[in-house]
Amino acid sequence: MSKYGFLGIGIMGQAMVTNLLKAGHEVTVWNRTAERCNLLVDLGAKQGKTAAEVVAQCEITFGMVSDPAAASALCFSEGGVLEGISTGRSYIDVSTVDVETSCSIHNAIKKKGGRFLEAPVSGSKKPAEDGALVFLCSGDESLYNDAEEALNVMGKRSFYFPQIGQGAQMKLVINMIMGTMMTAFAEGLSLGDKVGLEKNDILEILAQGAINNPMFQLKGSLMAEGNFAPAFPLKHMQKDMRLALSLGDSCNQALHTSSAANNAYIRAKKDGCSDEDFSAVIKSIEQ
Amino acid sequence: MSKYGFLGIGIMGQAMVTNLLKAGHEVTVWNRTAERCNLLVDLGAKQGKTAAEVVAQCEITFGMVSDPAAASALCFSEGGVLEGISTGRSYIDVSTVDVETSCSIHNAIKKKGGRFLEAPVSGSKKPAEDGALVFLCSGDESLYNDAEEALNVMGKRSFYFPQIGQGAQMKLVINMIMGTMMTAFAEGLSLGDKVGLEKNDILEILAQGAINNPMFQLKGSLMAEGNFAPAFPLKHMQKDMRLALSLGDSCNQALHTSSAANNAYIRAKKDGCSDEDFSAVIKSIEQ
Amino acid sequence: MSKYGFLGIGIMGQAMVTNLLKAGHEVTVWNRTAERCNLLVDLGAKQGKTAAEVVAQCEITFGMVSDPAAASALCFSEGGVLEGISTGRSYIDVSTVDVETSCSIHNAIKKKGGRFLEAPVSGSKKPAEDGALVFLCSGDESLYNDAEEALNVMGKRSFYFPQIGQGAQMKLVINMIMGTMMTAFAEGLSLGDKVGLEKNDILEILAQGAINNPMFQLKGSLMAEGNFAPAFPLKHMQKDMRLALSLGDSCNQALHTSSAANNAYIRAKKDGCSDEDFSAVIKSIEQ
Amino acid sequence: MSKYGFLGIGIMGQAMVTNLLKAGHEVTVWNRTAERCNLLVDLGAKQGKTAAEVVAQCEITFGMVSDPAAASALCFSEGGVLEGISTGRSYIDVSTVDVETSCSIHNAIKKKGGRFLEAPVSGSKKPAEDGALVFLCSGDESLYNDAEEALNVMGKRSFYFPQIGQGAQMKLVINMIMGTMMTAFAEGLSLGDKVGLEKNDILEILAQGAINNPMFQLKGSLMAEGNFAPAFPLKHMQKDMRLALSLGDSCNQALHTSSAANNAYIRAKKDGCSDEDFSAVIKSIEQ
Repeated sequence: MSKYGFLGIGIMGQAMVTNLLKAGHEVTVWNRTAERCNLLVDLGAKQGKTAAEVVAQCEITFGMVSDPAAASALCFSEGGVLEGISTGRSYIDVSTVDVETSCSIHNAIKKKGGRFLEAPVSGSKKPAEDGALVFLCSGDESLYNDAEEALNVMGKRSFYFPQIGQGAQMKLVINMIMGTMMTAFAEGLSLGDKVGLEKNDILEILAQGAINNPMFQLKGSLMAEGNFAPAFPLKHMQKDMRLALSLGDSCNQALHTSSAANNAYIRAKKDGCSDEDFSAVIKSIEQ
Repeated sequence: MSKYGFLGIGIMGQAMVTNLLKAGHEVTVWNRTAERCNLLVDLGAKQGKTAAEVVAQCEITFGMVSDPAAASALCFSEGGVLEGISTGRSYIDVSTVDVETSCSIHNAIKKKGGRFLEAPVSGSKKPAEDGALVFLCSGDESLYNDAEEALNVMGKRSFYFPQIGQGAQMKLVINMIMGTMMTAFAEGLSLGDKVGLEKNDILEILAQGAINNPMFQLKGSLMAEGNFAPAFPLKHMQKDMRLALSLGDSCNQALHTSSAANNAYIRAKKDGCSDEDFSAVIKSIEQ
Repeated sequence: MSKYGFLGIGIMGQAMVTNLLKAGHEVTVWNRTAERCNLLVDLGAKQGKTAAEVVAQCEITFGMVSDPAAASALCFSEGGVLEGISTGRSYIDVSTVDVETSCSIHNAIKKKGGRFLEAPVSGSKKPAEDGALVFLCSGDESLYNDAEEALNVMGKRSFYFPQIGQGAQMKLVINMIMGTMMTAFAEGLSLGDKVGLEKNDILEILAQGAINNPMFQLKGSLMAEGNFAPAFPLKHMQKDMRLALSLGDSCNQALHTSSAANNAYIRAKKDGCSDEDFSAVIKSIEQ
Repeated sequence: MSKYGFLGIGIMGQAMVTNLLKAGHEVTVWNRTAERCNLLVDLGAKQGKTAAEVVAQCEITFGMVSDPAAASALCFSEGGVLEGISTGRSYIDVSTVDVETSCSIHNAIKKKGGRFLEAPVSGSKKPAEDGALVFLCSGDESLYNDAEEALNVMGKRSFYFPQIGQGAQMKLVINMIMGTMMTAFAEGLSLGDKVGLEKNDILEILAQGAINNPMFQLKGSLMAEGNFAPAFPLKHMQKDMRLALSLGDSCNQALHTSSAANNAYIRAKKDGCSDEDFSAVIKSIEQ
């Protein structure tokens, strides 16, 4: 029996499990499309037949899927997380979901005697590979403490908030700022380009100033080249924007700038950029 | 006779001239409200009676005022820059203006035999004090070379673009991104606050991630405290947003996110925040 | 036993049942807060103890509540519509809801052998009183035909779309246009007022032109007077905007103008206008 | 000598002069591209060689051009209106311009002893042909009275505001509402289309309700067919939106909805719709 289980082997899960394995931990993995586990199995991971089986056989199981519907399905469907939960079993959902989804999973797992932590991550492909993610946790505090070693392997920092749902909310706030910064950046690059300035000059000047940040540095030159290989797929950013705006709606917080950004991502989805990096929003803005 | 003249002694001019004086240069200053020069005179500056007098008596004169109308007035009004210009005299406008204003000043000075450089700065109070501004220059290249020593004292980096107006355009692009990033940041903090998250937790988590930048770090905690002492006054940011959007309009570049941000600053002006730091836009967003 | 049942006696239900009674129909009514039925009972209506009882005792029962959650609760809760449904019983939901809610009610009722029609109305208090509503129906076509007499009493026109959910979608499209027209109107009146034009002059000139419409005529002068007595409460308009934007999100249709309008309503809710007429959005825009 | 002069023979001027001629008035016309006057000459108009000549020879001369720059050029350029002005000569500018342009023309004409009225019109091609325009006048009240007969021929109603610039401002307020209503309408039709509703069904239902208006009725079916023959060219609507937003900026009135609409028109210009009817904005929204 492995100490850790891991469900959902996409861009993020691949990198996170690799780091757990490198650190010497036993990990049992599962993915809906089983072949996506092959590389990890080659690196020493065991593979489970169902999510339920993994949860039942591991002390702590992590889940990383793409949206609230997938997170619910992973937990509640046949052969899902909930079937494997019993006293002594623990589940940590590191997906980005809304508060309602997080609460419903939390309640179901508690009812069966298990422990639950929501722990959405800040950071995409590169930080995942570097073990530099940030975990935004809320739920069972004892589980947060027991998971510390694994969180430290996969991430550089973790935060604990007492109330379930607050991890999800914090993640949405961060990603809403990030998503809107990206459309602001893309609008600036597009405007500069239209008036005859070189994108690389704009990037060099931004690098000197008060708004210089890793995202502009990392993605700016890729955007100038037209390279939109997905680190964080655009459709997932748009999903996070949607959830954040819905959160704003529920607490009467008008969000004019972020709503405009959200519409830019929706337009980019229509323009066929769903599976590219979210920086591909610049294509719809400048076209 | 001083080597350098400096017209317009506001937050920025004060800091820039101080650095020139500290570096051992003679500087002659002028300001519409003469008393604002007193501190600099105490530090060794000479004071001129009119802008024209300063321009006529110095090799290179810098001008730093708040908007296009002020820049035009400084140049064209009675006793203004143009009256002091003759062959051998040089004027560098470091204000942020639109392309049309820059071109009209450029043409008038060239006609009288003088040299002109537009050199809007990226950076506000703190970089000005630290000699860490970035100059975005276009116009007369020989003047750019002759001014190098002074630009190096006041700034950490300067860029030269051959076509007049491009310095202004680059500045507007940079400030539009900055202004929109600020409303994105403010919307995120406001949303977090409404759902019960601590602003300081949000700031700490942002500091770990891909969008961490000096502006969030510098202004974030001040905003959380409600301290909006002006480093870059909100009305000037709104002016830059307006000019950038007008540039977009002129080249058919739709700018949805930045337009929403501009409206947030306009609202903040109505709410009485014109002379506070531009980060005060958060007050109108979260109120 | 009455031919018609009616569940939900608010501004709209009151007027609709009054017209049914005036036309000589027997109507059995029910409302969560029972006293709201008193006026209708005085006019000759019978009163049921539960929604289920009304549905079980009437041929065709109408339901009119304020949002999708209320519509779901009315159907699925204890003593709700579903309990009263059996073969031969019919339910027509005239509330404005989203497609998912409409489908789930439709499926549940069909499973118990009943007939279901969704029939959201276009029109608020005044058209309801005048029997001039427009019904946007989809679902069971035989029920649509059987309800014709009642729909003709309460409304001036009804439309039938074959696919369940299309009535709801049509309603959202209409109300999104209406809600956005209102913020456009409010922005125009506010701008005019700021520059010194009389609101009544603006209204008189609008009345001469190509965009003259009953809503501007009816609400314009009330808005100029500051009279925001609710014909269609602002919180309901914001709910419809939210649902329409969510529909756009689901089919990748960017909706920049309507999103800005939605944020204006959200702001107005924060400013305390939820229960006023939706034209009260002007207060937040011009304040 | 004709009583009336008319400068600028575009879509609007053509129709307005035709009505003056039909009513039995003598009219002398002028257009930069002289051939555009041919049809009117066939109908009995005289043709002047320059704008100045027309102004000098007629009691009252009307000018109708497309934007502020053209209105300024028409007045101030060589052979322009101002050269023909003297005591006893009167000029009525029926173009839509900003307040500054209107004031500068007003001042120049007064200085030469002439009378000036700004009289922008509400209404496009069809009302112009039907003599059903609305004139929004400000400036010299005696000229307003003297022009009454001609205004009554070309329009169905005219308004007088005492302060110069108010006619222009009123026009901008009206057109901003109209332009934003159009993008709201276009978003609604696009959303409906995406979810499978027929545009003609949406139009029929709108025609029943509180927001029914001539613009929706006139343009809706043309839009559904994809017919965008220009009654009011999109580039002119975008110009009016820009001027209205600039007016809002100058008086600290945030205009979120109208700004979003303006960006939709800018996008449509980039998409090549400048010279089509402004309803062509739907193509950029739904594409």
